[in-house]
Amino acid sequence: MLKKEENKTISFLIQCEDKKGIMQKCVNFFTDRDFNILHCQQHTDSYENMYFMRMEVDMSDLKTSRKVLENEFDNFAKQNELQWSCHYSDYCPRVAILVSKTSHNLYDLIARKNQGQLHCEIPLIISNHPNLEKIANSFRIPFYYLPVTKETKKEQEKKVNNLLKQFDIDLVVLARYMQILSSEFIEEWMGKIINIHHAFLPAFQGANPYQKAYERGVKMIGATSHYATADLDQGPIIEQEVMRVGHELTPKGLKEVGKDAETRALAKAVQAHLDSRILIYKNRTVVFNTKN
Amino acid sequence: MLKKEENKTISFLIQCEDKKGIMQKCVNFFTDRDFNILHCQQHTDSYENMYFMRMEVDMSDLKTSRKVLENEFDNFAKQNELQWSCHYSDYCPRVAILVSKTSHNLYDLIARKNQGQLHCEIPLIISNHPNLEKIANSFRIPFYYLPVTKETKKEQEKKVNNLLKQFDIDLVVLARYMQILSSEFIEEWMGKIINIHHAFLPAFQGANPYQKAYERGVKMIGATSHYATADLDQGPIIEQEVMRVGHELTPKGLKEVGKDAETRALAKAVQAHLDSRILIYKNRTVVFNTKN
Amino acid sequence: MLKKEENKTISFLIQCEDKKGIMQKCVNFFTDRDFNILHCQQHTDSYENMYFMRMEVDMSDLKTSRKVLENEFDNFAKQNELQWSCHYSDYCPRVAILVSKTSHNLYDLIARKNQGQLHCEIPLIISNHPNLEKIANSFRIPFYYLPVTKETKKEQEKKVNNLLKQFDIDLVVLARYMQILSSEFIEEWMGKIINIHHAFLPAFQGANPYQKAYERGVKMIGATSHYATADLDQGPIIEQEVMRVGHELTPKGLKEVGKDAETRALAKAVQAHLDSRILIYKNRTVVFNTKN
Amino acid sequence: MLKKEENKTISFLIQCEDKKGIMQKCVNFFTDRDFNILHCQQHTDSYENMYFMRMEVDMSDLKTSRKVLENEFDNFAKQNELQWSCHYSDYCPRVAILVSKTSHNLYDLIARKNQGQLHCEIPLIISNHPNLEKIANSFRIPFYYLPVTKETKKEQEKKVNNLLKQFDIDLVVLARYMQILSSEFIEEWMGKIINIHHAFLPAFQGANPYQKAYERGVKMIGATSHYATADLDQGPIIEQEVMRVGHELTPKGLKEVGKDAETRALAKAVQAHLDSRILIYKNRTVVFNTKN
Repeated sequence: MLKKEENKTISFLIQCEDKKGIMQKCVNFFTDRDFNILHCQQHTDSYENMYFMRMEVDMSDLKTSRKVLENEFDNFAKQNELQWSCHYSDYCPRVAILVSKTSHNLYDLIARKNQGQLHCEIPLIISNHPNLEKIANSFRIPFYYLPVTKETKKEQEKKVNNLLKQFDIDLVVLARYMQILSSEFIEEWMGKIINIHHAFLPAFQGANPYQKAYERGVKMIGATSHYATADLDQGPIIEQEVMRVGHELTPKGLKEVGKDAETRALAKAVQAHLDSRILIYKNRTVVFNTKN
Repeated sequence: MLKKEENKTISFLIQCEDKKGIMQKCVNFFTDRDFNILHCQQHTDSYENMYFMRMEVDMSDLKTSRKVLENEFDNFAKQNELQWSCHYSDYCPRVAILVSKTSHNLYDLIARKNQGQLHCEIPLIISNHPNLEKIANSFRIPFYYLPVTKETKKEQEKKVNNLLKQFDIDLVVLARYMQILSSEFIEEWMGKIINIHHAFLPAFQGANPYQKAYERGVKMIGATSHYATADLDQGPIIEQEVMRVGHELTPKGLKEVGKDAETRALAKAVQAHLDSRILIYKNRTVVFNTKN
Repeated sequence: MLKKEENKTISFLIQCEDKKGIMQKCVNFFTDRDFNILHCQQHTDSYENMYFMRMEVDMSDLKTSRKVLENEFDNFAKQNELQWSCHYSDYCPRVAILVSKTSHNLYDLIARKNQGQLHCEIPLIISNHPNLEKIANSFRIPFYYLPVTKETKKEQEKKVNNLLKQFDIDLVVLARYMQILSSEFIEEWMGKIINIHHAFLPAFQGANPYQKAYERGVKMIGATSHYATADLDQGPIIEQEVMRVGHELTPKGLKEVGKDAETRALAKAVQAHLDSRILIYKNRTVVFNTKN
Repeated sequence: MLKKEENKTISFLIQCEDKKGIMQKCVNFFTDRDFNILHCQQHTDSYENMYFMRMEVDMSDLKTSRKVLENEFDNFAKQNELQWSCHYSDYCPRVAILVSKTSHNLYDLIARKNQGQLHCEIPLIISNHPNLEKIANSFRIPFYYLPVTKETKKEQEKKVNNLLKQFDIDLVVLARYMQILSSEFIEEWMGKIINIHHAFLPAFQGANPYQKAYERGVKMIGATSHYATADLDQGPIIEQEVMRVGHELTPKGLKEVGKDAETRALAKAVQAHLDSRILIYKNRTVVFNTKN
């Protein structure tokens, strides 16, 4: 299992009903092919009787084409009723950021990408408002301003979808994009849209969470990053952050303080997704720890 | 303002509509009577246009009887439309703890009281179940077992109320007392009942919050201490605690982990109440920091 | 891997130099003997080139005596240069608590044990002061008062050691025991003494950490639980807790606030040790997450 | 005390030995001049016998010139042996950022400034390395590259100092500037240089704190923002942040995770300074809460 920092790796994300011997079978699949296993993380949900595994192997041990490996694993998976995906560390995922008028998540994601904390490309930013174009420009990222009205909603969403496809996007990040997406759109991108909600879900769903938080007099505020599903603010939670707040803050003050929770919750979720550390089941996620 | 550690103090809690000069008037009330002001904490809620003050003065400067001081302050308060209360540090408040079957909050409160962290007496424990009697016995605190059924609910509550009066109780702590109190009872003890809810309110109101938290797949669980009001789990929040949880935990595991959040949230709320650091307005609280 | 809640389990803690194939070999050892693997947790420290594993298997699959299993594993371990230990869930470890005058950790540990959060027996409490005897009595735990002076230090420690052996103690918890133990004593109990230091180590080593914290003007205070080693406050850290503090607190106030950090840091460390979730290497620990 | 959001304000920071009546005198100074007191925050350090006050008044009540007000307050201060400073909300402080090669704090500070979270100008960035010039350029902030060697250290520092004066700088932020400043420089800018140290001070002072943290096996890492003094890493602490870390992280991983603690600790310190919420005494700070 000698890890060489510079090594390229392949990560398999596997889930199935829990059953005796499944771990050994998965391990043997890779050791039979003489793969060095760099990391193996597992979780058994005894409540749901589900088994989850993340297996990271040394890509330099790959003796066949990627396609052959995937076909072989697919056969193995079918025999054992596994759901799976695999991810190559030398592929750089392509991320689209959708925004409206608020910029803190946008700044934060771009800065992290530029510093190498997020392993991805950001080939475009899309917005229903023109406000943040100058930020996109300063980072030299193409900015697509696609305004939307009640009448043009369907049409605008189609344009968004076309752009995502045209740019070969792997992950869509809703960085305070204040538009509700259609269930068709979400269905098409299922498991590939990460949203940030500016509250500690399931508290304060919907609009104006900081106003509601003020009125309820909570002593902590939070933010929740989750995969988008057809039910608004109901998708599988990836990451949550909270911050202690006192009586000193008005709704406006809560909003300011909450920004830090929002940037961290979203950045950590995007990073976990890009590192292939997340498995989704039912309305829940398994998020394995980073290893480095 | 020279504070002498050993000094007895008087604390005034004051609230009113915010208006120019109100602070000076309050300060002058005490300095005119030659009181040394040990601590003066204030809050202006600019959103609600409310002013709050906690003034702690040196009791040894008291030249009159307590009754005279209170009468004088009451006149002053009426002129300036203040709501107020005052608290003497040499009075030891009497606290009743109500429990059902769960013991972690009970253990914690008694241990803190015994160690001098909570400045109070605990003359009795009341429960609708017999389970925790042996804990009460080990600490030599009288335990009243008052079982309750649908039919006897009203009658049992009356017995509880009688005990509270008989023992001159100042504060009722619902330390996981799993009975809903009548609105009459709560009305009578308004501002004097602190409850612990085993979730991060307003998320997961009502029963089985840890089960709901598991199903929603949250990444943090919490606990909320609040004053009881007629609306279940809707009263003014005093303190909240959260703990980060991962996918490893089943509902049972969440429940175990959550106990620490519950003990801290309840203990801090009880302590703040006993220190006379809490003001209630609308459905919110101002909780001033401890000073020592 | 079907987990039955009621099942008894055997946990193996394994560490070795990292090498290719080691995981598969360990897995095969258990699956060859038809053990159902309930949980398998691993860690590769790529910096130190070390491999760590915690393997929890179903005890009902044990076909041989425990001794035979241990012998077989020992042979396997020798061949592969593994360090290991194994732990049976139906054995209830015996814990001695050593205290001086401070009671918050003692209360907390006993309460957790009584509530089933800590899976252990506490057959005795030892102290160099008589102050906490009444707490021991209220919980009906034998209390041994062994005063110590400079002259009697060696002799007193011998008495302590004899008591620990007489009571078949598995784990010694220094719950604010304010005596420095000799290196001989610590050597003899290496890996079996957990201490709580009332600061965020390595800051504020030695005496009076809260006074030092006040003087340094820190904005957070902490507590550190660690295995005792011959170097005071230098042993492998198991758990740390911090609490945000403001300028309001004097050294005395910091001390009060810090108690909660101390109780949590110590309780979590003791629980992890009793759950056989800790591996020690160099001056570090691997602490695997709880699973339930 | 009616606060109008749009109002300009004047903030006085006051400290003195604690004495009876001092609060009333300060309040009267402002009410005698018919100032509406918007916020009054106080702290009594009973351990050091010191009194601290932050008084925020409505600038529209100012009937004289600023100079006259300051002269009058200065007379008052001399009579009462107060140390004081005052700050006008309509003045926008000028901040210089000094960096070396690490960019996360730089990105974060500029983003917060651009979004209005930090009320300041950033007229220049100075660095002893050319690496971050392109970031400065993308935000159109002048970048001064002043390389330094052992031989040119004194001369380079002089150039830095000249630039700071030429640009009328009010606050110098060392955003991971990896050069030790001379005691003359620090003396000249005393109370006006904020540094970020990438560890939880006083733990891991000096170089390579994450390496040291790894070796010590800590379970939390942190960051500390403080005013620079002649003793390296010994200045008055303003803000600290910690993050829980597990055994999974190598020194490199700790460094990555620590960045978030560094950005938050520095940003909060700079914000508190710009809001005139910090008082320094001995080697400690009083940091009053934000109000909005």
